[in-house]
Amino acid sequence: MAEQRSLTIADLGELDLIERLKPFCAPNAVGDDGALIAVDAGHRLVVTTDVLVDTVHFSDRTTPPFTVGWRAVAANLSDLAAMGAAPLGITVGLGLPPETPWAWVKSLYEGMAACLREYGGAIVGGDVCRAAQRTVSITALGQVWPEWAIRRDTAVPGMSVVVTGAHGGSRAGLAMLLGELEGCDTTAAAGWIRSHQQPVPRFDAIFELNQRMPLAGPRPAIAGMDSSDGLANALLQLSKSSGVGMDIMRSRIPLPAGLSAAVGRDLAINWALYGGEDFELVLCLPPDLATSFAAASGATILGKTTHTGIVQVLFWTADEKPTPMSIPLSHKSFQHF
Amino acid sequence: MAEQRSLTIADLGELDLIERLKPFCAPNAVGDDGALIAVDAGHRLVVTTDVLVDTVHFSDRTTPPFTVGWRAVAANLSDLAAMGAAPLGITVGLGLPPETPWAWVKSLYEGMAACLREYGGAIVGGDVCRAAQRTVSITALGQVWPEWAIRRDTAVPGMSVVVTGAHGGSRAGLAMLLGELEGCDTTAAAGWIRSHQQPVPRFDAIFELNQRMPLAGPRPAIAGMDSSDGLANALLQLSKSSGVGMDIMRSRIPLPAGLSAAVGRDLAINWALYGGEDFELVLCLPPDLATSFAAASGATILGKTTHTGIVQVLFWTADEKPTPMSIPLSHKSFQHF
Repeated sequence: MAEQRSLTIADLGELDLIERLKPFCAPNAVGDDGALIAVDAGHRLVVTTDVLVDTVHFSDRTTPPFTVGWRAVAANLSDLAAMGAAPLGITVGLGLPPETPWAWVKSLYEGMAACLREYGGAIVGGDVCRAAQRTVSITALGQVWPEWAIRRDTAVPGMSVVVTGAHGGSRAGLAMLLGELEGCDTTAAAGWIRSHQQPVPRFDAIFELNQRMPLAGPRPAIAGMDSSDGLANALLQLSKSSGVGMDIMRSRIPLPAGLSAAVGRDLAINWALYGGEDFELVLCLPPDLATSFAAASGATILGKTTHTGIVQVLFWTADEKPTPMSIPLSHKSFQHF
Repeated sequence: MAEQRSLTIADLGELDLIERLKPFCAPNAVGDDGALIAVDAGHRLVVTTDVLVDTVHFSDRTTPPFTVGWRAVAANLSDLAAMGAAPLGITVGLGLPPETPWAWVKSLYEGMAACLREYGGAIVGGDVCRAAQRTVSITALGQVWPEWAIRRDTAVPGMSVVVTGAHGGSRAGLAMLLGELEGCDTTAAAGWIRSHQQPVPRFDAIFELNQRMPLAGPRPAIAGMDSSDGLANALLQLSKSSGVGMDIMRSRIPLPAGLSAAVGRDLAINWALYGGEDFELVLCLPPDLATSFAAASGATILGKTTHTGIVQVLFWTADEKPTPMSIPLSHKSFQHF
């Protein structure tokens, strides 16, 4: 008798698994960096959650525990910033093997506390339990006025596509830590490593943006998300959620200082698009707002949203040849299963 | 040269680990079933988090995945009920080995959804990632009017100590599932197993309690928590947090139907006090309120809070001999490290 093997989540893959879990979730729980929950007419709660696992998301080789803590908090706070929300607090669920050194746990919490002290919020709850692997599960809570919440599905044709900072630095920093890059300019390399180890949630950019919004009356529609899974992923997600096309000037993609010189422009652009974990914001804004926001915040206008009928991101090269981005997301972003 | 071995969390033990993590947390994050966060003057958010790990908190032997899901949600909702809060939603962080059957994950979510459908709230966010062990990390969010929040540190001498239901059933159900008990009354045993597998967060009791509160003006001070870590633990925690003593009538401890007959009264009482996971509420109420609440909800008045100068729980036996409970908590409740 043939053994009946049951369908595993490895058979499904991460994307299919998530699709199958969606029907169990509230409709507003999926599709943005965080979920919006109505507390009362004047407040929306934003909630986002991340599970980080030893050897999958971090390792002692590239990530000292202070850095694991900082990055875990920064990634969650970045999701709040991407929703336009201010942080309220986080909960921390820890799974730990009994032989974990106390010094590791202490340093992890010091990293979390340092990031919260810098950008707001506090540790408001937690749980510890025994586990085979070090596991850090963080849920971040934020709040936002309903009309100030930033979604992914609200871009329309004719908006400017804006990015708040350089991309590729986190990937370059990882390459440095893994010893894959040598003989680089040391000042530049230190910057990339900092991008990787101590990313910055861009609440400052949200502040600049809100400063430029009308004091009374309706706010102009905008859309946005963070670039935690790579710039290419953010552009595609925004296009897909909003049903718009995008024309992106490849030459305008902002790269960290020294990266093109060190690895060549093509690899630098590749890391900018697909490296991930730069935690910048990608925003679709009305052109006037985009111009004044970019001038004040140092953000870059990459291109514009279009009305092509099909959702695609066109990268215009210097010689004016459009290159539709056709690489399937699933082949480029990290898949857990 | 002697090898310098670093201090591990197994060396510290769970209670010391938690003490060392407290300074990193907001002051309102510890000491109650959930943390209270001010959203605005009229609302408090309640947040609570639990990490459940395969082989530590559940196993395929005693807990089918539907049950893992139900219990995980019920335990978190019970923390909300213990704070007097109504559920808003939960986030679910899953760590899974790639070979996990999809059927297991589906059934887990069906169990979570069934519990949420019954008692309120929805899955509002989540994350999945690869891990060596099945890990379910849940954060539950609730809300409560500031003056309706139930704390542990607000009991005063002269209150009645009330418990909302029978204790020991969950431990008895586990014993049945492990095959440790045989020849029991099958109806009774089915009830114990149900207590273990599908515990009920007692929002109904909170509703009954609030029905008896004054419509206007200040509410009488009350205190409370849930009995997830055992009835003895709840009594001791309330005493300790509030700085009161307690006189508890051992004979009044409510036991599930058939348990004394099956295992003898002493073991039944032992399981009621130390078994844990019954998820009832233990409340300290003004005597008049306690009487009307108990009559309406089927709760039991176990005894009263006292002004002994020392914090202790005295169990009065039938022959009127007081037995101070001197067993250290740490020897009786489950320690992860």
